[in-house]
Amino acid sequence: MMRVPAERVRRQILNVLHAWGMDGDLAATTAEAMVETDLMGIDSHGLSMLMMYESLRGNGQLDLTARPRVMLDAPATALVDGGANLGHPNADFAMRLAVEKALKAGIGAVGVRNSHHFGAAGHYARIACAAGVVGFITSSARTLLLVPTRGTLPLLGTNPIAFAAPALRNRPFVLDIATTTVAANKVKVYDLNGKPIPEGWIVDEAGRPVTDSAEAMEVIFKRPGGGATPLGGAEITGGHKGYGLGVMAQILSATLTGAAFGAIRNPQRRPGDPDDIGHFFLAIDPRAFRPEGGFEDDMDAMIDTLHATPPSDPAKPVLVAGDPEAEERERRLQDGIPVPPALDRHIRDICGRSGARYELGGD
Amino acid sequence: MMRVPAERVRRQILNVLHAWGMDGDLAATTAEAMVETDLMGIDSHGLSMLMMYESLRGNGQLDLTARPRVMLDAPATALVDGGANLGHPNADFAMRLAVEKALKAGIGAVGVRNSHHFGAAGHYARIACAAGVVGFITSSARTLLLVPTRGTLPLLGTNPIAFAAPALRNRPFVLDIATTTVAANKVKVYDLNGKPIPEGWIVDEAGRPVTDSAEAMEVIFKRPGGGATPLGGAEITGGHKGYGLGVMAQILSATLTGAAFGAIRNPQRRPGDPDDIGHFFLAIDPRAFRPEGGFEDDMDAMIDTLHATPPSDPAKPVLVAGDPEAEERERRLQDGIPVPPALDRHIRDICGRSGARYELGGD
Repeated sequence: MMRVPAERVRRQILNVLHAWGMDGDLAATTAEAMVETDLMGIDSHGLSMLMMYESLRGNGQLDLTARPRVMLDAPATALVDGGANLGHPNADFAMRLAVEKALKAGIGAVGVRNSHHFGAAGHYARIACAAGVVGFITSSARTLLLVPTRGTLPLLGTNPIAFAAPALRNRPFVLDIATTTVAANKVKVYDLNGKPIPEGWIVDEAGRPVTDSAEAMEVIFKRPGGGATPLGGAEITGGHKGYGLGVMAQILSATLTGAAFGAIRNPQRRPGDPDDIGHFFLAIDPRAFRPEGGFEDDMDAMIDTLHATPPSDPAKPVLVAGDPEAEERERRLQDGIPVPPALDRHIRDICGRSGARYELGGD
Repeated sequence: MMRVPAERVRRQILNVLHAWGMDGDLAATTAEAMVETDLMGIDSHGLSMLMMYESLRGNGQLDLTARPRVMLDAPATALVDGGANLGHPNADFAMRLAVEKALKAGIGAVGVRNSHHFGAAGHYARIACAAGVVGFITSSARTLLLVPTRGTLPLLGTNPIAFAAPALRNRPFVLDIATTTVAANKVKVYDLNGKPIPEGWIVDEAGRPVTDSAEAMEVIFKRPGGGATPLGGAEITGGHKGYGLGVMAQILSATLTGAAFGAIRNPQRRPGDPDDIGHFFLAIDPRAFRPEGGFEDDMDAMIDTLHATPPSDPAKPVLVAGDPEAEERERRLQDGIPVPPALDRHIRDICGRSGARYELGGD
């Protein structure tokens, strides 16, 4: 498989976004978020999303020329309209605004409506950390995938929750999770390898667990009923908790900001209308609660203790959220970002259609 | 089993708290929180906690005469020292302070350190809802129960997360979850009934699932290793997500407020020192983001849609977080709060030792 240096992946994304008419600064922010996502190993949310963005743009659902607009502004809160542009520039703008407010008011909450897919939520949580504050992020999502506990139809997206907190000696704690048990993409990988999926990931329209990966793909992408279980799986193992967390993310991201609840078929909605995805960004300055440095010292002590927990398998040490992504980032900075042949072909095609210069494949 | 009217349970709790020297207003707040918890069917966190509080008080770990003190105060944030009193009066005070700030600044975050068990987190989230704002709560916990993914020792408590949002036509959405798959109390119920527990609740010191309920009780209460799985269970079904949510609750409740991380054996700690539990309370006024009423209308539309999801079993309709507790509350307001004979005996004994008037058993 081709491995492409991060810098070249960034240039490739920039070329396409520029060809699509996105402003230079917003394109730079978007390319940065997408490359960081690929570097952290979250392949489903980086470069490979360009195909989806191209199709949204083709449908007229995406306005790459819009700039985030502050609609309501107060010392500790703000509402931003994303103008139906990609989520990345909206999220970057909103997270930085929340951080700015937190550094003055101790806390800042910024909601975004009328946005789109923003890549990996953890990327924006890391922006908060880099400024020395705690970050908390939720988002609604476009594709209905999560089947509520006891239900038969998917009514919520994977609605991610991210949370990050800075340390001093250690890497920051960065949690970035879907509120479903797994993302659709994981099922795809099992299907491609012809492997059955573990029980508890996907249920059919009768609420029965599906373990055949080909059938699971059908349930997710073709059949109206069935979908992904909420985190926790079945009700007996706490699936109602994951369902509740998914609704919490929906409320903060979309109900609070006035964005869409995808499961309601709005009769006023026309083909080509934007998806109206919502995001929520919270930043908290530890210095509003403790003298400078105390928080970070205690973070380090906690992270050290968690890392030192005796593991059940000595080959698999206990991790802290953010470890796998940070380690993958170091590897990929060294070795490049893997680009499968099919993705490379898609990118070549996008370049052909948009007139962007192709450069993944090298000099 | 004896069923006692809520009003009489409240008087019983008040009698004991007064006999223990708690101030009238703080005792009233505590009794209210405990009775509400029992009314909502969360038996493990209400009246039955008096035995634990008596033992903490006996050890000198609990100071029932302390009043919550605001240590740091800003328009949108505050830090409260709980003075080693029970969590209930501290949590009630902090949640109301957060709501007050949210009504002025759009958002309010109040941390509490040096506190104790506060009952059910959802009770305080409902206080936010009753004032028309969104509430979000986390807490650290005393007993180490959660075994980190890949680990063999419990390092975190059940660290609850609660979230509530008001509607108009519908009951509010009220999520109140432990970040473990189940609470220790659920295992106790299976053990009392001689039933095996479902795989995925408890793991032993080698990380193997335990299904024998008697062995599970031993793992939880007697053996140093093993404990409860995080929400999601095994790593393959997303247990690392629940582990991350547990750490998130720990960071917000304890690291941010300067409260204890129980897993670190502090050499300065002496027997009788308070547990130093931390809580975090966030309130958000929807009117900082949307015109009055828009949030509640969209909450109603979402809740209606969730309730209308076709269920896989027609006898078990799709629920929204808070439904089971609200329904149980109506039943118990009617029929009284069930008090098992063993609990009644404990309460009689506490009355005997404290000099409080016993009145559960009637006139």
